[in-house]
Amino acid sequence: MSGENDKNIIFAAKFQSMHTYQHEVKYYECDRMGVTHHSNYVRFMEEARVDWLDQLGFGFEKIEAENVFSPVISISCEYKHPTTFKDIIDIDVKISKMSETKFEFEYTMHANGKLVCIGHSAHCFIENGRPVAISKRLPELYKALVELSA
Amino acid sequence: MSGENDKNIIFAAKFQSMHTYQHEVKYYECDRMGVTHHSNYVRFMEEARVDWLDQLGFGFEKIEAENVFSPVISISCEYKHPTTFKDIIDIDVKISKMSETKFEFEYTMHANGKLVCIGHSAHCFIENGRPVAISKRLPELYKALVELSA
Amino acid sequence: MSGENDKNIIFAAKFQSMHTYQHEVKYYECDRMGVTHHSNYVRFMEEARVDWLDQLGFGFEKIEAENVFSPVISISCEYKHPTTFKDIIDIDVKISKMSETKFEFEYTMHANGKLVCIGHSAHCFIENGRPVAISKRLPELYKALVELSA
Amino acid sequence: MSGENDKNIIFAAKFQSMHTYQHEVKYYECDRMGVTHHSNYVRFMEEARVDWLDQLGFGFEKIEAENVFSPVISISCEYKHPTTFKDIIDIDVKISKMSETKFEFEYTMHANGKLVCIGHSAHCFIENGRPVAISKRLPELYKALVELSA
Repeated sequence: MSGENDKNIIFAAKFQSMHTYQHEVKYYECDRMGVTHHSNYVRFMEEARVDWLDQLGFGFEKIEAENVFSPVISISCEYKHPTTFKDIIDIDVKISKMSETKFEFEYTMHANGKLVCIGHSAHCFIENGRPVAISKRLPELYKALVELSA
Repeated sequence: MSGENDKNIIFAAKFQSMHTYQHEVKYYECDRMGVTHHSNYVRFMEEARVDWLDQLGFGFEKIEAENVFSPVISISCEYKHPTTFKDIIDIDVKISKMSETKFEFEYTMHANGKLVCIGHSAHCFIENGRPVAISKRLPELYKALVELSA
Repeated sequence: MSGENDKNIIFAAKFQSMHTYQHEVKYYECDRMGVTHHSNYVRFMEEARVDWLDQLGFGFEKIEAENVFSPVISISCEYKHPTTFKDIIDIDVKISKMSETKFEFEYTMHANGKLVCIGHSAHCFIENGRPVAISKRLPELYKALVELSA
Repeated sequence: MSGENDKNIIFAAKFQSMHTYQHEVKYYECDRMGVTHHSNYVRFMEEARVDWLDQLGFGFEKIEAENVFSPVISISCEYKHPTTFKDIIDIDVKISKMSETKFEFEYTMHANGKLVCIGHSAHCFIENGRPVAISKRLPELYKALVELSA
């Protein structure tokens, strides 16, 4: 029980100290209009998600080593302001929804002091081609995600 | 007035004869899980939209020649089934929403007889950095879009 | 022996009838200068190579089903003329070098009646992490490649 | 004359202190074989070149502000070892050839203590659609490049 509490405290502390992910826009990511092509934000979201899970101690390779895969169910982006070559995009990630089988991230992206994009992505977990309850299959991760979504 | 009717008939006829856009999945579009990386569907949507506007007679270069740009305001994808290398994705495009300043496309994608992805994208028109009413600035296109969204 | 001859005749005939691969430049493939980003030609070369091997009857999946992989050893591109959105690039593929363990493709790309790029790629075959002689492991493909490189 | 010497000393000092560019391989940069897709190295080379010119004080935007563009004439890559998701690729850039109208970069890429790729890219300068002598149009940059290629 106190072990439980300790872990919660550890996750809370981890979360407090988690850094914002940064992506610097590359030349090849800009389009004919001179701005970051809109499809690339979906890739920046993946980069930020990978980094966020790493910081939490549940990297992709750790999850995949359990033979569990986490496909993307849906994504969305609202573009608020264009960015361009060499802009630094700060991406803050948080859990916006959470159930036993599905969880959703929200990405808030800023550059040059402006909100540039808000993104969402929803994910489930798959083992041997079938959806699994995260709470049962990866209880540690589930606990961490629930706590962070509180 | 009858000229108006004629045009409506022409658009209706055009729309009837518009073909489904096809994208064959490339090797470099597949990821470590062996499936089409989810970010690429946003690019397939752009390809289908470009083709759809071309078929309608309002290609990107025609619109840009008017010094009008049409940025993407938002996009979303619901992934229903994975696809992989060499799959042919059939993409049907339709106008799902329409106002004087904004319009929205819906993309229904099938491969191997299965629904693989449903996408949406919303767009506005910009001239000299400011939003313009499509109905006033590009009345012909507006008329065509309204009709097709009916 | 006559079976051998027949096959040679079949390959020669196949080669005669092989079509040029075409890539239409996508909006998202163009950069801030308004031209096709140079890195994309390496992808067009892969597309053309996949198509060429398919036409020859040795598709990637057929080779990979033998548990043999064919990594890229080297690539090069000489850019002769820029291309842009909606340009159709015609890509002609031929075998430019050939040994027991290595083969090289040459790609000649034209658009709008101009030579736009000349590319090369070299490949070997790998089985269980080790290079294998194509002549022994995939004798049919070896024969076809030798013949076409003559 | 001594101003000349000072500049040379400044460039030499700059060059001494120039850092190696690092690219961390992203999930979406890996292909079906689980390794970094070969086309992406051409993009990593561009990233490293942009960073190198920035460190030297001749960023892309500074050159483009002079209305001078620097298209890629040719590129090549020799792939020595595969890399994968999360690998850190160290990219060292140097001038490997230099003339009044053309210059060539060499990129040496290491990851996990192994040589993974050697790349080359050649560039010229264009103003109003015509090649210009770097020595005349951008004498400061020319001097820096000559010195660094010595």
